[in-house]
Amino acid sequence: MQSVDINCDLGEGFGRWRIGEVPDAQLMPLITSANIAAGFHAGDPNIIDETVALAIEHGVSIGAHMGYNDVQGFGRRSVKGSVAELVNDLVYQVGAVAGFARRHGAPMRHVKPHGAIYMDLAARDDLSEAFIAYMRAAEPEAFVYCMPGFSTHRAAIAAGQPAVREFYADRDYDDNGSIVFVRDAGHYQPGAIAQKCLRACTEGKVQTVTGKDIDIAFDSICVHSDTPGALAILDAMHEALQGAGIRIAAPSRS
Amino acid sequence: MQSVDINCDLGEGFGRWRIGEVPDAQLMPLITSANIAAGFHAGDPNIIDETVALAIEHGVSIGAHMGYNDVQGFGRRSVKGSVAELVNDLVYQVGAVAGFARRHGAPMRHVKPHGAIYMDLAARDDLSEAFIAYMRAAEPEAFVYCMPGFSTHRAAIAAGQPAVREFYADRDYDDNGSIVFVRDAGHYQPGAIAQKCLRACTEGKVQTVTGKDIDIAFDSICVHSDTPGALAILDAMHEALQGAGIRIAAPSRS
Amino acid sequence: MQSVDINCDLGEGFGRWRIGEVPDAQLMPLITSANIAAGFHAGDPNIIDETVALAIEHGVSIGAHMGYNDVQGFGRRSVKGSVAELVNDLVYQVGAVAGFARRHGAPMRHVKPHGAIYMDLAARDDLSEAFIAYMRAAEPEAFVYCMPGFSTHRAAIAAGQPAVREFYADRDYDDNGSIVFVRDAGHYQPGAIAQKCLRACTEGKVQTVTGKDIDIAFDSICVHSDTPGALAILDAMHEALQGAGIRIAAPSRS
Amino acid sequence: MQSVDINCDLGEGFGRWRIGEVPDAQLMPLITSANIAAGFHAGDPNIIDETVALAIEHGVSIGAHMGYNDVQGFGRRSVKGSVAELVNDLVYQVGAVAGFARRHGAPMRHVKPHGAIYMDLAARDDLSEAFIAYMRAAEPEAFVYCMPGFSTHRAAIAAGQPAVREFYADRDYDDNGSIVFVRDAGHYQPGAIAQKCLRACTEGKVQTVTGKDIDIAFDSICVHSDTPGALAILDAMHEALQGAGIRIAAPSRS
Repeated sequence: MQSVDINCDLGEGFGRWRIGEVPDAQLMPLITSANIAAGFHAGDPNIIDETVALAIEHGVSIGAHMGYNDVQGFGRRSVKGSVAELVNDLVYQVGAVAGFARRHGAPMRHVKPHGAIYMDLAARDDLSEAFIAYMRAAEPEAFVYCMPGFSTHRAAIAAGQPAVREFYADRDYDDNGSIVFVRDAGHYQPGAIAQKCLRACTEGKVQTVTGKDIDIAFDSICVHSDTPGALAILDAMHEALQGAGIRIAAPSRS
Repeated sequence: MQSVDINCDLGEGFGRWRIGEVPDAQLMPLITSANIAAGFHAGDPNIIDETVALAIEHGVSIGAHMGYNDVQGFGRRSVKGSVAELVNDLVYQVGAVAGFARRHGAPMRHVKPHGAIYMDLAARDDLSEAFIAYMRAAEPEAFVYCMPGFSTHRAAIAAGQPAVREFYADRDYDDNGSIVFVRDAGHYQPGAIAQKCLRACTEGKVQTVTGKDIDIAFDSICVHSDTPGALAILDAMHEALQGAGIRIAAPSRS
Repeated sequence: MQSVDINCDLGEGFGRWRIGEVPDAQLMPLITSANIAAGFHAGDPNIIDETVALAIEHGVSIGAHMGYNDVQGFGRRSVKGSVAELVNDLVYQVGAVAGFARRHGAPMRHVKPHGAIYMDLAARDDLSEAFIAYMRAAEPEAFVYCMPGFSTHRAAIAAGQPAVREFYADRDYDDNGSIVFVRDAGHYQPGAIAQKCLRACTEGKVQTVTGKDIDIAFDSICVHSDTPGALAILDAMHEALQGAGIRIAAPSRS
Repeated sequence: MQSVDINCDLGEGFGRWRIGEVPDAQLMPLITSANIAAGFHAGDPNIIDETVALAIEHGVSIGAHMGYNDVQGFGRRSVKGSVAELVNDLVYQVGAVAGFARRHGAPMRHVKPHGAIYMDLAARDDLSEAFIAYMRAAEPEAFVYCMPGFSTHRAAIAAGQPAVREFYADRDYDDNGSIVFVRDAGHYQPGAIAQKCLRACTEGKVQTVTGKDIDIAFDSICVHSDTPGALAILDAMHEALQGAGIRIAAPSRS
């Protein structure tokens, strides 16, 4: 790999609340794509406006980060809706973030589902196909961020929607290449994460929770803004990737 | 007047609830511009999607109908927010409806604030100027529906944003040309409303609640979908206007 | 059976929206227990206040009708929360309705979960046990309405919480005694429903969707206020039950 | 004064968000009355449950902290509702918190409106009288926390509802005895605040923003959990008050 994107979930406050150890303004210079919480799981119109402006200021690509309609649950609880109504929720959120981008004169370059709907899309062909059909119709140029090889990715490929395959810096992998969420501080050593990312970029391998190596191919590395030490992790990643001559840049259509 | 638009607030349900005596599908053939509730006072992603599709089916212009963030209060209760945060709420809603229009391959042609925010915009220069500045930046082609002569209208003219002046078929006027909401069934006689509209179109006059005649100039007649007898009112208006050779058509930029 | 309760879900509006063919005030004289929507799936503080007052006026027992936190989905979509957080949602709603009862000087006599959480409680021992443990602690005198033989009922019996077993007038049964929701107008003939109820009361039998007869034992008949023809159904039930000498009365602790 | 209460707004998180420099568990040992956010401006069923349990563990009096229905605005934006609907919102919230207290076997001892509704009640006789009428009916034993001499206080006295007059440690006063919110770090010196409180307790005087001394009589000192240095402020207050032989205790009815 000669180039890789670094994406980060930002704007994840609500009203007067914020999360993350550092303000988004400190993370923005270290990333190339911002997934901006679109209001259903986090984010509100004021925070979206502010985060879009901040992204533009730092030359960071603007993306919509859409979740289940459940602010209290932070989009981490699946809601058993029909395919049509879940996709309508995504349409609403993508449109809203696109509207803020338009206000500030910048394009919305990508979309990334959040939390439980990200995982549910990855697991369900019906949901992914309906979501991608909408993207083809309304946002055919926007990159869909997704887990390589799962439903969302396959549906994007099948329909010709540009997709960005993610590698998760701060999550573990199981042997199927799916991410596993382990709350364990030991996993958040900046140096170890940077090395894991570098190896994934240069060798295309990652070690799973069972100790096995699996192949991994991706276009973007995801770091969560609420991961402990996110700032130090991003710094370490930059150092490691640049040391290896890998350019850090937002995806672009060839 | 050779031509007039008829606009109507539609999609004003929420979840499984609906209002109005007849389904929107029966009103759609009789109007030329649909103000589609954008989700903060009424409407939800499913209803917006359905209403946008219905408007396209009937060749009706699609507009966003944005309200205060208060579904329970139906956007009829002012919320004391800052100018910046109130405008951000409007940006969010306009973007969301525009996203559904884009999904269905149609343009969002206009915007119309709803209820208390419509009246607050009409009364406040600071709010109107900030709202119109956003429209100039993001939706410079979209018509802003407004009360002729009030703040929203003046701000649109000053900034060069296309505006559509409304005449309210089912509301009364005070001597200042502002609308008055009188819940009185006698006001809802289809024939009387049709004659009031016809006179406004041909003579440019309307009688106020004090019995005085005032001048009125407008581009569009508004009928509320939840006005008792809305369907009969629309039928009577069509008959009266067409009888006088007035064409009913959505506004277009000359 | 010498006596049976008739319970009905009421107050199922939200903001300015209402559902059901007739206002709650017309159903209230025909029922003995009102399940009042507690605000998370329907109902709002104004509607709860009004419905509690209406129940008192008609001598109807007041109960809380608690749902998933999803007004847009009307509580019909399961939300994957932890047992603790789902029960906390129920605690909040029960307390709120009890507060309105207290305001009007009447006791809250029962609780009944709504929609998806009713079905999820019926199916899950862990959820039912946690819910009933809360009821024992906070509302040990309140009847818990439930499907006979399922988890909620078993947990109530095991803990000594008073339970009211329901028979669903306007739903069909499968062979396991669980209710099936078939949207078929033919099922809503008032006379047929009244006969089904009468037979259930006198013979303790109901015919399932497969045509088989199963035993059914219950204390209360549920009629939904949004069932087509609810008023006629209630009238027919009264006639049939009274003709057979069965008294219609709210449950009381012996 | 021989004894004074210290009250604090707690449980002001929402979903996964928290505010304040330290967790509520660190403030709880230093206060005698907890105003627990009731869910409309902050707080959710999980946080209320947790905060009620924590209060009981520390022998702290449990109170409901009710706000405008506006989580995004943190209850700091007035909503123009009718008196009846605003009071219904308070009834709902008081009932909900009381339900959690009942679950944990403790009484709800007091109520305190939050933010904009606290100020609106203080300024409006109609709203205060309707609110106090509800309290008389439903919670006649609960203390109503209020600004001495303003509408809420006067209505409580007139109706015989027990009231607790507050002194605001971390707010300034104008010459009318109303609080002024000045965001100025210099105001948050623990030693200075402790001396201000001590003087108010022993001399019954406080210096206003104009430099004038006014008389002040109160039963409870309010410290906000989100005031910078809240923990140090509470520590300094304890030292000063105890040094002067003033007992710190929740209010009780004589």
